[in-house]
Amino acid sequence: MDGVSILILCDIGNTTFHFLMDGKHKKYSIEEQLPQFDASVYYISVNEKATKKLKEVCNKTIDIASFVEFQTDYVGMGMDRIIACKGYEDAVIVDAGSAITVDIMNKGKHEGGFILPGVRNFEKIYAQISPKLDFDISVKVNLDKIPLHTQDAISYSILKAIILPIKEIVKNKKVIFTGGDGELLSLYFNNSLYKEDLIFENMKGIIDVNNCIT
Amino acid sequence: MDGVSILILCDIGNTTFHFLMDGKHKKYSIEEQLPQFDASVYYISVNEKATKKLKEVCNKTIDIASFVEFQTDYVGMGMDRIIACKGYEDAVIVDAGSAITVDIMNKGKHEGGFILPGVRNFEKIYAQISPKLDFDISVKVNLDKIPLHTQDAISYSILKAIILPIKEIVKNKKVIFTGGDGELLSLYFNNSLYKEDLIFENMKGIIDVNNCIT
Repeated sequence: MDGVSILILCDIGNTTFHFLMDGKHKKYSIEEQLPQFDASVYYISVNEKATKKLKEVCNKTIDIASFVEFQTDYVGMGMDRIIACKGYEDAVIVDAGSAITVDIMNKGKHEGGFILPGVRNFEKIYAQISPKLDFDISVKVNLDKIPLHTQDAISYSILKAIILPIKEIVKNKKVIFTGGDGELLSLYFNNSLYKEDLIFENMKGIIDVNNCIT
Repeated sequence: MDGVSILILCDIGNTTFHFLMDGKHKKYSIEEQLPQFDASVYYISVNEKATKKLKEVCNKTIDIASFVEFQTDYVGMGMDRIIACKGYEDAVIVDAGSAITVDIMNKGKHEGGFILPGVRNFEKIYAQISPKLDFDISVKVNLDKIPLHTQDAISYSILKAIILPIKEIVKNKKVIFTGGDGELLSLYFNNSLYKEDLIFENMKGIIDVNNCIT
């Protein structure tokens, strides 16, 4: 690897290109025009159309998926979820974005997972049911007390609906949180860790192990 | 009460007028034109504008709320929830419609409650997050097994997100279900009862007790 070249990572999701370049984050909507990249771009993707768009503006793209072996019986698991799980032997991995993916690693094998709506999308649903239920979540709500008004009732319900299905499968495992609401949700778990850049860190780890820097 | 007169009950919600007349159910959207009613209409309402509309087509309307005493510290509890809880000393009352209201009765007092999104609205949110998550819930999903594909992952998550917050507060209480998805959800609880017409039955009970037939 040339000492002065910059490592460019890209996590291509359903709605955004998320880049990490020289330690800096940069997001583009998949509708936006991307800049030209002269250096190599290492990417993962769950979005074929957007991947094609990235390739049009890059001299060289390297799909990290090609270096990844992952043991699972799960059908159609997105590469972002696979990368998030990589390196964990026994843990629950929670990526809390627009959807909240929950994956269970057991003795180095992926045991399956589930997908809850993200916190903001939960809020949105209530507003769509009735304007009377249009509230922002209050993280100050006491989850040990049955609510006594609507805003608390909604905040309580959203948090319980997300936290309890995760708690049920955690048992004595560590819970690793990432994503926009990962830090908030991690507060409700004892044996938890919030890793803002979990996916990029794991992408880097795979690049290092495979010596695939060009 | 005149032996031949028909008892007309109406539950006015956010989006519908729900009538029970002579044992028959009839629903009208709040936008629809209502027929003329010559007999008295006994109603409960959470929708002032729709109540006004009902009054325009009725010779006589009787608001059942005026006969109801109900002990709670809950602020802004809809009359439908109050009526559903009436008559229960120790129980959890779940009305599973477009929203799922959960109310706790403890020694004859309402202890509070919470509000989950309804099953269909849960499904809708996934479809809005991504077309890849657009699935109908499968009630055949095994809730004792971590899912291994997306449709199961969504069905599992919706059911767990609804069931677990209710289970947490049920303890040894009986759970009374009503509403469109009440029967489905009642299957996941041991000590449960599904009452399709809970609200109308309780409205009738209040009318009987108060001898308020005119």
